[in-house]
Amino acid sequence: MNEEFVEMALLYDFYGGVLTPRQQEIMDLYYMKDYSLGEIGELLSTSRQAVFDNLKRAKVQLRDMEDRLGLVKRFRTDSEKKTKVLGNLDGIIKALEREQGKEKIIEKLREIREYIQTATGG
Amino acid sequence: MNEEFVEMALLYDFYGGVLTPRQQEIMDLYYMKDYSLGEIGELLSTSRQAVFDNLKRAKVQLRDMEDRLGLVKRFRTDSEKKTKVLGNLDGIIKALEREQGKEKIIEKLREIREYIQTATGG
Repeated sequence: MNEEFVEMALLYDFYGGVLTPRQQEIMDLYYMKDYSLGEIGELLSTSRQAVFDNLKRAKVQLRDMEDRLGLVKRFRTDSEKKTKVLGNLDGIIKALEREQGKEKIIEKLREIREYIQTATGG
Repeated sequence: MNEEFVEMALLYDFYGGVLTPRQQEIMDLYYMKDYSLGEIGELLSTSRQAVFDNLKRAKVQLRDMEDRLGLVKRFRTDSEKKTKVLGNLDGIIKALEREQGKEKIIEKLREIREYIQTATGG
């Protein structure tokens, strides 16, 4: 995926709800489902140019939302890091389960695991 | 704090950037700094009614943003829970520091601590 696709997928995930249903449909077809402008035009019975214009407006709007609110920057969780951290936690829990008298620690680590899983978004 | 103040403080924290500078100022004075409508009117050289109307519009806009995007619901971290979880982690790390041969586990727990601290917003 090129950078614009990654950027737009993230912005759409956070701010897609501010776009019109039509714009959402076009964003979804173009960025998520990889349709071409021409294909989207055919599908929605409109011109390639109209799709292009609509998409361009949507992109401007989504970038403007991030400029104003900055929530992608603030709340985007690094999913690779999260996977690594959860994997480490699982390894530690397993290691401790083999030792005796570690029940309390294990219980707390399970709570921590639960917290990370639920608190850090997708 | 009553429920509306808690709700508006959260919504403003996430979506305040979509409001006009004037609305932001009024929200800040009313919800964060606890000024009355009349006091804000005096401060901004306008009527109590104008402040009330502006505030009402801002509230509608912020609630509309959450209806569309749902980011407060999705990303609000429970700060009490976070504090508890970090406290538990610190306790475990301290306990393990007294034992020998636990360096790797401690290192991983430190990484986990770092992750929670940075990944879960405020």
